[in-house]
Amino acid sequence: MKKNVPQAAHTTDKTIALIDSIAAQVRADIEVGKLPDLKFPVRALDNVTYDKRKGYFELGAAEKERTLTVTTARSFAQTLRLMATSRTMVEHDDFATKREVYYISKNWGDCRFDDQAESDATMDDIEAMASMHGLSREQLRFYPESHGGSVAGRLTVVDRNPLSGATVEIDCANLGSGAYSIPRSVEHLSFRTDAQFVLAIETGGMFQRLNNHRFWETARCIIVEMGGVPTRATRRFIRVLSDTQNLPVYCFVDCDPYGFTNIYRTLKVGSGNAAHVNRFLCVPQAHFLGVTPQDIVDFGLEDATHPLSPRDIKRAQDALENDPFIMAHPEWIAAIKELLAMGVRAEQQALAKWGLDYVISEYLPKKLANTGRFLP
Amino acid sequence: MKKNVPQAAHTTDKTIALIDSIAAQVRADIEVGKLPDLKFPVRALDNVTYDKRKGYFELGAAEKERTLTVTTARSFAQTLRLMATSRTMVEHDDFATKREVYYISKNWGDCRFDDQAESDATMDDIEAMASMHGLSREQLRFYPESHGGSVAGRLTVVDRNPLSGATVEIDCANLGSGAYSIPRSVEHLSFRTDAQFVLAIETGGMFQRLNNHRFWETARCIIVEMGGVPTRATRRFIRVLSDTQNLPVYCFVDCDPYGFTNIYRTLKVGSGNAAHVNRFLCVPQAHFLGVTPQDIVDFGLEDATHPLSPRDIKRAQDALENDPFIMAHPEWIAAIKELLAMGVRAEQQALAKWGLDYVISEYLPKKLANTGRFLP
Repeated sequence: MKKNVPQAAHTTDKTIALIDSIAAQVRADIEVGKLPDLKFPVRALDNVTYDKRKGYFELGAAEKERTLTVTTARSFAQTLRLMATSRTMVEHDDFATKREVYYISKNWGDCRFDDQAESDATMDDIEAMASMHGLSREQLRFYPESHGGSVAGRLTVVDRNPLSGATVEIDCANLGSGAYSIPRSVEHLSFRTDAQFVLAIETGGMFQRLNNHRFWETARCIIVEMGGVPTRATRRFIRVLSDTQNLPVYCFVDCDPYGFTNIYRTLKVGSGNAAHVNRFLCVPQAHFLGVTPQDIVDFGLEDATHPLSPRDIKRAQDALENDPFIMAHPEWIAAIKELLAMGVRAEQQALAKWGLDYVISEYLPKKLANTGRFLP
Repeated sequence: MKKNVPQAAHTTDKTIALIDSIAAQVRADIEVGKLPDLKFPVRALDNVTYDKRKGYFELGAAEKERTLTVTTARSFAQTLRLMATSRTMVEHDDFATKREVYYISKNWGDCRFDDQAESDATMDDIEAMASMHGLSREQLRFYPESHGGSVAGRLTVVDRNPLSGATVEIDCANLGSGAYSIPRSVEHLSFRTDAQFVLAIETGGMFQRLNNHRFWETARCIIVEMGGVPTRATRRFIRVLSDTQNLPVYCFVDCDPYGFTNIYRTLKVGSGNAAHVNRFLCVPQAHFLGVTPQDIVDFGLEDATHPLSPRDIKRAQDALENDPFIMAHPEWIAAIKELLAMGVRAEQQALAKWGLDYVISEYLPKKLANTGRFLP
């Protein structure tokens, strides 16, 4: 098989340097007769903080140590082999999904992983440790399995041919009724755009509507399909795009507790149980365009709503009582209380009540004229 | 809002002509004082047949009538309004998802749909009726919500700018590490390719692997990510691509009953409970490349397998006893019995046991050298 052209050298070098330095320390300990140890950040919820200014859930300073002993010999070896696997993948510009990593270990003899939960946990430890050095899981070459969402609009993605290294440019304004499917790692991409914002959309149907009617052309934007809670690749793509091009990110999702506290919240501040990756994946600059509880009134959607389910209500109450992100923002507290008082939820498709083109001709232009009123 | 350029005129004309002729008949009945009726194919399983030569589950001849009476007045009106909606969408080159259709009805006064199950059933009736005239749901402008899968390889998709009508060409060999995301309707697409086959892949991770290593370049093929059971758009895309370009379709999925009887079977012959759409969506020319039970032996994957779960076993036994497709093919009966005897399943990622590049350097080339041995 032909060897791929390496990604940006500085990233590659950083990953290899980190792995080499850890390996060198382990070796040095052994050579002086000391039991080596590895340090990892604690990945539990009580080691997670939310700082409104930083804008995302973050890992705290707590660390756990894995010292080589009789009982830890296997997991110690697994950790080192997994780091070696990562190093080899960087060298060969290759990558592995979590599932593949698990299978790779089948040839490791006694230190093979018994099930994927075991390899995932080890990988998460390495990832958390690397994150403290500014390296993401993708830079370790562990790629997510899941689909990367679709993109269309005023954007040229600058990629490379993985084999020849030649520059490849993808004009996302010129894909007809189709779209650009985000790759599982976006670290090597760069962008050119004259868009004024990124619109992140919950449903595939709404994405297709805005794309088929070239909403992005006149609205001067880039549209991204999240397809429910956005995957890692989608979140990282939006983040890098927004950071490098200095573009605001507006979210267009359903008006229900799931849309607020799962889809939007995950995009903006990340999730509590993967805090070590939030610094790479979350999009603190995101704002909530709609659909808001107030939109139900302002756009006459009352008869296109559905009653909140007991699960919706529980999710909303949980957010008010326990979610540090919601609790830090009075606007969100008010919006969720308003929704609970109304007792209904509304989907973004509910706008079709006024005609299929209403969302494009009325709703989005009216909302976009008042970005200052978007929820934080 | 600017009006989109219509799709291929003959399709548009056929849809409008069908709706107009049904409406004219209803009107003629009313004008002579007769109660009008509408005829729909019965969409129940006992009106489904499997013909090995045709290669897909097909609706039988049984019909149900919906005559206008006091009790049917509402559903009769809903059916006519839904057909009128379809006609309007054809005229304006617009479309609606199932969910949007439900919301559109919120402005229909007394004949609004109470829930989406009701509008879905009515839409399925219209779709089944149209299918008897060779028209698909997409031609009625009812689009699926779900994502359309990713494509890369030796293929140029010829689309159009929905607003200007200008031709747009997407070179799927030139999208870097990204891919082409299939739109929700593919009826207006045409293709240019020098590929020799289409490879339909179950998992996103394997798709990304084959894409990043440009497998399609040397293997001279087009790769399509199914992401589990392929969506309608993905199935239709593969079907139209294969039909028009005369390309064989090979499937690369997990070796388990779900992979055989859900993912592969759905792609190839469709599903029993949506028989009226199978003629447009299924890919009878598909063949099963692997992973086969015999591959577990031939490629030494025994220690990278997992025991069959009780659910796997039940699914396999059901297929042997009840699935007309499996029962029509002795090769599949033998394969499933072999799997049951082995008592294990193997994922396509299990090949990573021999190294990440094994699937590209060994497995796929060996399999593709013997396409005649693929399962039917």
